[in-house]
Amino acid sequence: MGKALAVSPLAPTAFPDLPVIGGVEFAAAQAGVRYAGRTDVMLVRLAAGTAMAGVFTRSATRSAAVLDCQEKIGHKDSGPAAIIVNSGNSNAFTGRNGVESTHAVTSAVAQTLEIEENRVFSSSTGVIGEPLPHARITAKLDELKANLNPNGIAEAARAIMTTDTFPKGATATIEIDGKPVKIAGIAKGSGMIAPDMATMLVYIFTDAQADQAKLQKMLSKLTDVTFNAITVDSDTSTSDTLLLAATGASGVNVDGNAAFEAALHEVMLDLAHQVVRDGEGATKFVEVNVTGAASDSDARVHAMAIANSPLIKTAIAGEDPNWGRVVMAIGKSGAAADRDLLTIRFGDILVAEKGWVSPTYKEQLGADYMKGQYLAINVDLGLGVGKSTVWTCDLTHGYISINADYRS
Amino acid sequence: MGKALAVSPLAPTAFPDLPVIGGVEFAAAQAGVRYAGRTDVMLVRLAAGTAMAGVFTRSATRSAAVLDCQEKIGHKDSGPAAIIVNSGNSNAFTGRNGVESTHAVTSAVAQTLEIEENRVFSSSTGVIGEPLPHARITAKLDELKANLNPNGIAEAARAIMTTDTFPKGATATIEIDGKPVKIAGIAKGSGMIAPDMATMLVYIFTDAQADQAKLQKMLSKLTDVTFNAITVDSDTSTSDTLLLAATGASGVNVDGNAAFEAALHEVMLDLAHQVVRDGEGATKFVEVNVTGAASDSDARVHAMAIANSPLIKTAIAGEDPNWGRVVMAIGKSGAAADRDLLTIRFGDILVAEKGWVSPTYKEQLGADYMKGQYLAINVDLGLGVGKSTVWTCDLTHGYISINADYRS
Repeated sequence: MGKALAVSPLAPTAFPDLPVIGGVEFAAAQAGVRYAGRTDVMLVRLAAGTAMAGVFTRSATRSAAVLDCQEKIGHKDSGPAAIIVNSGNSNAFTGRNGVESTHAVTSAVAQTLEIEENRVFSSSTGVIGEPLPHARITAKLDELKANLNPNGIAEAARAIMTTDTFPKGATATIEIDGKPVKIAGIAKGSGMIAPDMATMLVYIFTDAQADQAKLQKMLSKLTDVTFNAITVDSDTSTSDTLLLAATGASGVNVDGNAAFEAALHEVMLDLAHQVVRDGEGATKFVEVNVTGAASDSDARVHAMAIANSPLIKTAIAGEDPNWGRVVMAIGKSGAAADRDLLTIRFGDILVAEKGWVSPTYKEQLGADYMKGQYLAINVDLGLGVGKSTVWTCDLTHGYISINADYRS
Repeated sequence: MGKALAVSPLAPTAFPDLPVIGGVEFAAAQAGVRYAGRTDVMLVRLAAGTAMAGVFTRSATRSAAVLDCQEKIGHKDSGPAAIIVNSGNSNAFTGRNGVESTHAVTSAVAQTLEIEENRVFSSSTGVIGEPLPHARITAKLDELKANLNPNGIAEAARAIMTTDTFPKGATATIEIDGKPVKIAGIAKGSGMIAPDMATMLVYIFTDAQADQAKLQKMLSKLTDVTFNAITVDSDTSTSDTLLLAATGASGVNVDGNAAFEAALHEVMLDLAHQVVRDGEGATKFVEVNVTGAASDSDARVHAMAIANSPLIKTAIAGEDPNWGRVVMAIGKSGAAADRDLLTIRFGDILVAEKGWVSPTYKEQLGADYMKGQYLAINVDLGLGVGKSTVWTCDLTHGYISINADYRS
């Protein structure tokens, strides 16, 4: 690292004001895992009875911490819980030593906080393939414990950053039966959803009361339309982790509650969009809507083919309304499409229909639209009712600069 | 267009000396389809009895010319044949007008050369979505016919170029039963295998005598390990076309002949590699070998995941021996992999094995290796006997420059 990246032009103006969530305390410390002069470890303590749900990378080369979390999620244990996260080293592809490092950290946290080890969830993000100097983390646990406080979430968000150019937070509060239920989340990820520094980590906290299995189901469903619907460069991390902790401090049960689900969706989508907005080198935020597909899954395949196409992403970077490349991406995706039934719009501008450019379309309309910072590519396949929305960013010289000279 | 691109640093030193193929004549002309001051149409006349085989893009949004070729290939008609190709306009996504343009060109060629229209094969490459000014092509047919000659193949190779920085040709001659059998091929494609100017077109000619069905089978099989095993940016053209014409002029039948198949393989691989070497912005040629996979198709999935990963391709551009990104690509590919059985080599340098960096590996070894122009990433999965080899290039600022400001 060492080089500070300019803040993304798509960054929010400020970190949001996140509310205190009953039953959650945070602390951050400088453990010097890899970085100097900044925090790189966050510790979260969660009250007894907290329900934990999680979603993890599907990579076949998952890190030790991810495998450990996956094993621990879903148990009904009702004691206090903890989350420990370090940046600077991902402890991924570190063989048996990696498993030992994860265990060393989680068992030390369990001992320090006097909780069960199977209630301690850990994540590591940073360089891959280097042994995690876990003693530097465990040496900081007493300090972290002493500093635990309900107001530390913004500090925690900063401690987990790697190539992020801004810390990411989002919140929502709803009222259920006259009582407020709060949600606050933080995330890191500079968008490429990749293994080095750019792993996506997300931690969401709520004072709602929830059954673990029902909470897990809701989280998995919402992940499909939020974090699994974003892409920066199609690459997948070995460490992606999303944890949701419901402490129950509000005394309000949210099992099957639609308003809670909507609020959680909003927080997750906000965080997911912030990850895209911090996409490496990103200068444009792009929504891809596919409708009229033979099925929802076909629509997703088309949408991802468009969102991941280097040709489309470079055209967007160049503010070029190159709809021909959209036709190409649909053609190559492998999902059902009929060239002569396609409709393509940039925002509301009808560009192409019935197998050819629209008679109303003027190149200047598209060129003007492409100058915007927030763009929508809308495709209707004219085949059925399947639909999907995904989000991405453009592919710029900034991406090449960041990734062509990163580790060496 | 207009801007001349610098010749790729990976270009061959010169266009090869291609032999005359009995039964094949070439001509090129300046039709002004889109470009000025250069040839943009090639015509090929093939002797009666020529067997025609072809392989085409699998895109669901194929161009009119591709659909027309697919319909014509496979018939046993034994009259003379012709190939007509224009650059500058791909006649893709041009609706019903596109079909009419293709027909206008092929029927005019049939009339001019006095052959059957179902023996006239056409291709168009260039911008997408704009009507093909086919009258400019047909107006040149008499001139083209008058100029047909057996020595025109190099001129033909130049007429079909678009964003190519060098014309592509390859040849092989073998002896069968004491008689020479010749193969000569030309190609265009600046590597991204994409819809605009970068469509891949390949025309191969031989004086071998062959049964159409057997020739087609051989061509399809060899395409899998040559043109379908290269990738520049994972994007697929709406117009990709490969035609093989066997005139029979040598009097040597090659049905099932292993020496002929090997020679054809060599020519196809040479042309495929030249397409990668002309990859937009390419500065490194990369071979990806995957062995030890559960199956050949799994090996291909892993190899393509590595070859298409923007993170790996940018690391190569930056001469960064970032093997962690190789682990990532294998993990995300979806095919079977076990982190702890993986072996990764850069060339002959053992980098990682058994789930961790090799004890013999030094970062400097990898860094020195990456400075080369021709690189190999070798992965053994330790699971089975499946294997696959694919070829790609790096992802550089040059790619962004070419594609972010191409059409407007």
